[in-house]
Amino acid sequence: MKIAMIGGGMVGQTLASKLLAVGHDVTIGIRAATGAELAKPRNYTATLNDWQAATGGKVANFAGAAAGADLVFNATSGLVSLAALRAAGAENLSGKVLIDVSNPLDFSAGMPPFLPAALSERTSVGEEIQKAFPDALVVKAFNTISASVMVDPALVPGVELLIAGNSAAAKTQVADLARQAFGWHGVVDLGDISGARGTEHLMPIWLRLYMTGGSPLVALKIIRG
Amino acid sequence: MKIAMIGGGMVGQTLASKLLAVGHDVTIGIRAATGAELAKPRNYTATLNDWQAATGGKVANFAGAAAGADLVFNATSGLVSLAALRAAGAENLSGKVLIDVSNPLDFSAGMPPFLPAALSERTSVGEEIQKAFPDALVVKAFNTISASVMVDPALVPGVELLIAGNSAAAKTQVADLARQAFGWHGVVDLGDISGARGTEHLMPIWLRLYMTGGSPLVALKIIRG
Repeated sequence: MKIAMIGGGMVGQTLASKLLAVGHDVTIGIRAATGAELAKPRNYTATLNDWQAATGGKVANFAGAAAGADLVFNATSGLVSLAALRAAGAENLSGKVLIDVSNPLDFSAGMPPFLPAALSERTSVGEEIQKAFPDALVVKAFNTISASVMVDPALVPGVELLIAGNSAAAKTQVADLARQAFGWHGVVDLGDISGARGTEHLMPIWLRLYMTGGSPLVALKIIRG
Repeated sequence: MKIAMIGGGMVGQTLASKLLAVGHDVTIGIRAATGAELAKPRNYTATLNDWQAATGGKVANFAGAAAGADLVFNATSGLVSLAALRAAGAENLSGKVLIDVSNPLDFSAGMPPFLPAALSERTSVGEEIQKAFPDALVVKAFNTISASVMVDPALVPGVELLIAGNSAAAKTQVADLARQAFGWHGVVDLGDISGARGTEHLMPIWLRLYMTGGSPLVALKIIRG
């Protein structure tokens, strides 16, 4: 499948690398795919030049990555996701499954980051993306765990994938891809895209658990009586 | 032990009833303990007259309940907790363990409720209470589960109590009370009171799981790799 990975940071690179490894045709989309950007040091991960050399993956501008794709991931920061997807182009998202992995973490006041009210108080990034791109099939997924766990859920035994979206068919497609590409078996459907509010709100406790436990291999599992 | 339960709604009554049943001396505190208030119908629970008749518990004004107490619970809505505790009196909270069970759920825009930015964006009710009453030993606890599970954790096998607070001794006292009075065994210490941000942010997903699953017997369990 042709997949566009919007965002070339740690999450985007980790997801793209694994998707390439299992046979998909993946292009990472960044704002400006210039030589300087490809060589630029990135937080906690490789330069995009090194990533291309290691994986054989491609890098393009946002729109160039999204244009030919069958499926699109949003792996940008939730603070800039709407801008990045606008640059990718509504016409390049229309009718496609758009897997939104983002969280609106604002680090401007230091650690821990907070969820800015405009993107969290009565909404979520997932919902705002669906509103801005009504013809895309937005599925919120993978945003509750570390990048390493997204592509290898066996790292946290018992972890389940939490998904939300308005299209049942799109959610089935995401669950199938998650199983086939990354090995996810347990999937919990939280209902329509407003379920993204729940998963994005998990960030404060997840970050606290990461900090107090010293490891990102931590998750919250739903248990019932 | 003499315990003040600030708040006479479903959560306050459920906690107070169980504490009475295991031998504590419990007074529910409400804003104005008048005859009309005691007879007033309450959401999802008994009138306070009926509660008194059924349990032998007492009801007083906020300050009257807190004045003689060894330990205080805040079981009011997080939207009004600061006002209720001010009415209880800083002098009646000073030096005492104050178990904050509240969540700042704003139902003014209908279901689902949202967390108002003033009490959640870069803070939490737990933190605001600790700031307003620096001489109280605030421990955030019990706010991530239904009232029935607070006093009977066996209803959701595997559930653990999530606590946060600045005083290690106060947290130990809360864990001991939770075990002795309610049967809690697993306790997860999230660190200082700012950990309350994490647990209060669990409400959106918890409410979503309650609505999609049709049962309040649901919780989020921390799992690690």
